[in-house]
Amino acid sequence: MLIEERLKEIQEKIKKKLPKGITVASVEFEGPELVIYTDDPKTFADQDDLIKILARDIRKRIVVRPTILEDPERAASAIRRVVGENGGISDIFFEADTGEVLIEAEKPGVVIGKNGATLRDITREIGWTPKVVRTPPIESSTVKQVRQYLRAAHQERKELLKRIGRRIHRDVISKDQWIRVTTLGCCREVGRAAFLLSTPESRVLIDCGEKPGNLDSNPYLYVPEIHPLTQLDAVVLTHAHLDHCAYVPLLYKYGYEGPVYSTPPTRDLAAMLQLDYLDVVNKEGKPIPYSSNEVKEYIKHSIVLNYGCVTDIAPDIKLTFHNAGHILGSAIAHFHVGDGLYNVAFTGDLHYGKSRLFNAAVNHFPRLETMFMESTYGGAQDMQPSRNDAEEQLYEVFREVLGRGGKIIIPAFAVGRSQEVMLAIEEGMRLEKFPQVKVYLDGMIKEATAIHTTYPEYLNSELRNLIFKEGHNPFLAECFEQVDSQEKRERVITGEPCVIITTSGMLNGGPVMEYLRNLADDERNCLVFVGYQADGTLGRRIQKGWREIPIGNRETIIVNLDCITVDGFSGHSDRRQLMNFVSHMQPKPEKIFTIHGDENKTIDLASSIYKKLHIQTTSPMNLETYRLI
Amino acid sequence: MLIEERLKEIQEKIKKKLPKGITVASVEFEGPELVIYTDDPKTFADQDDLIKILARDIRKRIVVRPTILEDPERAASAIRRVVGENGGISDIFFEADTGEVLIEAEKPGVVIGKNGATLRDITREIGWTPKVVRTPPIESSTVKQVRQYLRAAHQERKELLKRIGRRIHRDVISKDQWIRVTTLGCCREVGRAAFLLSTPESRVLIDCGEKPGNLDSNPYLYVPEIHPLTQLDAVVLTHAHLDHCAYVPLLYKYGYEGPVYSTPPTRDLAAMLQLDYLDVVNKEGKPIPYSSNEVKEYIKHSIVLNYGCVTDIAPDIKLTFHNAGHILGSAIAHFHVGDGLYNVAFTGDLHYGKSRLFNAAVNHFPRLETMFMESTYGGAQDMQPSRNDAEEQLYEVFREVLGRGGKIIIPAFAVGRSQEVMLAIEEGMRLEKFPQVKVYLDGMIKEATAIHTTYPEYLNSELRNLIFKEGHNPFLAECFEQVDSQEKRERVITGEPCVIITTSGMLNGGPVMEYLRNLADDERNCLVFVGYQADGTLGRRIQKGWREIPIGNRETIIVNLDCITVDGFSGHSDRRQLMNFVSHMQPKPEKIFTIHGDENKTIDLASSIYKKLHIQTTSPMNLETYRLI
Ligand SMILES: [Zn+2]
Ligand SMILES: [Zn+2]
Ligand SMILES: [Zn+2]
Ligand SMILES: [Zn+2]
Ligand SMILES: [Zn+2]
Repeated sequence: MLIEERLKEIQEKIKKKLPKGITVASVEFEGPELVIYTDDPKTFADQDDLIKILARDIRKRIVVRPTILEDPERAASAIRRVVGENGGISDIFFEADTGEVLIEAEKPGVVIGKNGATLRDITREIGWTPKVVRTPPIESSTVKQVRQYLRAAHQERKELLKRIGRRIHRDVISKDQWIRVTTLGCCREVGRAAFLLSTPESRVLIDCGEKPGNLDSNPYLYVPEIHPLTQLDAVVLTHAHLDHCAYVPLLYKYGYEGPVYSTPPTRDLAAMLQLDYLDVVNKEGKPIPYSSNEVKEYIKHSIVLNYGCVTDIAPDIKLTFHNAGHILGSAIAHFHVGDGLYNVAFTGDLHYGKSRLFNAAVNHFPRLETMFMESTYGGAQDMQPSRNDAEEQLYEVFREVLGRGGKIIIPAFAVGRSQEVMLAIEEGMRLEKFPQVKVYLDGMIKEATAIHTTYPEYLNSELRNLIFKEGHNPFLAECFEQVDSQEKRERVITGEPCVIITTSGMLNGGPVMEYLRNLADDERNCLVFVGYQADGTLGRRIQKGWREIPIGNRETIIVNLDCITVDGFSGHSDRRQLMNFVSHMQPKPEKIFTIHGDENKTIDLASSIYKKLHIQTTSPMNLETYRLI
Repeated sequence: MLIEERLKEIQEKIKKKLPKGITVASVEFEGPELVIYTDDPKTFADQDDLIKILARDIRKRIVVRPTILEDPERAASAIRRVVGENGGISDIFFEADTGEVLIEAEKPGVVIGKNGATLRDITREIGWTPKVVRTPPIESSTVKQVRQYLRAAHQERKELLKRIGRRIHRDVISKDQWIRVTTLGCCREVGRAAFLLSTPESRVLIDCGEKPGNLDSNPYLYVPEIHPLTQLDAVVLTHAHLDHCAYVPLLYKYGYEGPVYSTPPTRDLAAMLQLDYLDVVNKEGKPIPYSSNEVKEYIKHSIVLNYGCVTDIAPDIKLTFHNAGHILGSAIAHFHVGDGLYNVAFTGDLHYGKSRLFNAAVNHFPRLETMFMESTYGGAQDMQPSRNDAEEQLYEVFREVLGRGGKIIIPAFAVGRSQEVMLAIEEGMRLEKFPQVKVYLDGMIKEATAIHTTYPEYLNSELRNLIFKEGHNPFLAECFEQVDSQEKRERVITGEPCVIITTSGMLNGGPVMEYLRNLADDERNCLVFVGYQADGTLGRRIQKGWREIPIGNRETIIVNLDCITVDGFSGHSDRRQLMNFVSHMQPKPEKIFTIHGDENKTIDLASSIYKKLHIQTTSPMNLETYRLI
């Protein structure tokens, strides 16, 4: 059936369901949503459950939009009038491509009103669909830039959402029935995650990352399986770490024109880290694989989905994100293929345990036959201490090093470990577990933290309460100080004993190099590893005991300072948690592929799961293709 | 390095090795061979081992050709003069594209002379490179047509061999190292054989066949792995059966422009069967997938290799064919990848046991790590009686059916089973094991038999001796009579008790249908199955006991005649032979993939080999990709 006929049919169906007096001007697919354009959005807003009923009947995500939008200025003052002073509205953004108005307010509850009454009042007044977000306590320039960019590109974006929407809802034509996964990276190794899920109808790429510490090892994008890129239906991002997202913008350089699905925080964090990545590569004097223009293309093509929202991304594939507990916005990507045919999930990186920031990863699904799961700490010996023990060990190190007048360098991913460690340090200092010193943040850590507070609904409820109900925001504690210039960095280096949390987390470039260069020879100082050091990175080498480090230009760093690894802060599940994650899964999957781990760990985890839990397992190699059905 | 520079370098190298007085005008890659053009081929011919020495040093197959070729007519009379009456020269063909002259003679030994002396005399006289073949005792119109066509296209063929040659000898550029096999058909099923062998440099397709009895199930040529077809380096044909070669011409329709490697008999048999296939499909009123023009393209692009000849087919892949014992020219395709990196073989169809026609399949290789092996009779219960017992059973059936005045219909593949059965019948009749009756051959059987006698070196030595030394050609026995018209067919149907050997072997179309339509209701008659009946074919259904057969146009055949299966004539190894084939292999392979068999048989064979012979086995599914390294 032609897409036009299909839309016509849907419109007729909707008309029949509508109460008298409500009209539908037109319907259109925009991205994964079906948009109903109406001349009287106000009447629509009055019909409480109408949209829910329609969505269930038509089995699409439905959005209602007015055909004509009120003048933004007039609408803005109407909003302020309806909400009143109490809401603490800090900003209002009109998104012309979606007909939505984003209301940023100190007290979102007031803007929403009891059971959404105020929100409906707003809709009735202005036509625009109101969305409310909490005014972030720390402003993120990334979030601001991303929103500005999307607003500027709204005309183009409207067109491409329409194109994507029509592609998603095209007819299914093949009579063959199969589902395959091709491994394009991240098998028997950590890094360059890239998996192709394909059916006779559709192709979806899950992640497209870098190999940490190895600029030459990209995902295998040169093999024919993924070409032509124009035939790819979707890219799905599990989370914003570079080993999962660094090469997504490159796809646009190579001709990809489709959407990238992720959670909202992942979109912003990924864009931030990609730009930082270009910067780091450039500073190392190496050619950058793509430019900031391709990052913009990525943002322009991004479609964000919240946890739990079931979304059509291809004629025969529905995607749902579930919390993975690993970093802000990290997701397990669950794919439902065909009409009840098969379900496969990719865990991305996984933390099955509650942390200061996040809830434990989800392991209950409506249905699931096959899972691709990470194995970073999948080896039989990979037990991590509890978070509590880890924190006590960190405090102990702090006491000792600060006591002898040393400085503490903590290399950390800007996203994830940094925030966990910040929260532990803030509490330790508050409870006087170690001397009061400055904690400097260098690299993208401050900005990443700001993004965390922009998406409070992605933090666990305790932290959210602490910040927004009790009014205590640990990220804003006095001890934290941003390093934002070379001059400041030099002052930190020559100054008093202190703690420095800095990127990159595996010592492959970034400001940590500058600190190392200047602080490594003083044995009072201490380098504290709190995160996973991948094979081939400088971090791993120092961890293994290297004490003379060539850093280009014939320069060598002599490592005299203490090197200590504090396990237990990881955003990855340890071996026990991974086994628990699987054994408590509902339903029990038929098949598990162990990926994202060194060769012996993926193999060891696969064989343990098979032996103890009687699930068929495989530790695939890169560049293989497996039939799931 | 540019290919021109490379050729220059090789030419210099050759010059240095040559004795004084021999000059090299130029060198060129033509197909897999390096051709040395010289102004004095006669001097070259005098240097006995020169070409061998050069080939070893340069590690290429070397051919010497004169820059200027003698006028064919003058050359022909020179040949006849040098050889003399004794040789029985029946024809002489000049191949202008290769500078070869094909001398067809009753007594090839005389043309060759002692230690090749006469042949060298000829070279000295005429410049053309002489090749001698035995005058076939039965003339094949296929062979004649193929040769005529190649002669007519010689200019175009010269160009394409040069193009192919330069492609084969291009530089290796990738720094990655991997070898993969993608299964595009023939896994957990019999039919539509198609396997893609790929490295970072090269891609080779092994076989491209039909699924017997199922015109809709082609190999999975629509998946991206094999595209673009212009990037395919080579197609390699294990043998001429349609489940391995039917869709090769289609590749040219879809844009493939490269070579098809096979043994010489496979080329001719495949072309014959493809044309017959088009005819059968057309007669069934179905659309043909390609036309005879694409069969011509296939012939034009074919490159033939004899057993044991190691040949470069891609910058990093060498191909060697070994006897598979299955049908005329059937081969195990052995691939040596990289410089000592890895070896993988595809058995095609396999008979590990001597038959009346062929030697047993080869299972000793210089090196071999992985093997893809057929499993047609791989189930634990798939034991076949000995060939001798099978023949005795056949004679018994003949006695009974002929004794009661019935006719015997033997559906058989034109190639393989027919000739085996003919030899058994000829001997049985000669030894008076059953009454003397006419044995009618319908379909392509006579023509296929002619092709057999065109390539005596592909028959086993006993049969070759019988025909050429003892002068007894069983294929020419008086009892055999070709059915070459509808009138004749009707006379056979209404005539005396007799034996009818006819295609197709699985009752999916062909003249056998006509016999069945007319002879099925008489219970004195008998249908004797001597070959494998694939799932989904009419043959399999009747074997299973179907007695009412709809044959289109609302017509139904009522099966009253006897249906008997005589096992033991198969061209496939039975279970015991397959296990013996593997257990006596040298070297023992590391890994075996069981293919070309029903699901339970491939799985059963894989698990038995693993348990008894401790070799890692896999029973792959279609559309998977496996890393070998
Ligand atoms: Zn991660
Ligand atoms: Zn949603
Ligand atoms: Zn990761
Ligand atoms: Zn065969
Ligand atoms: Zn076969």
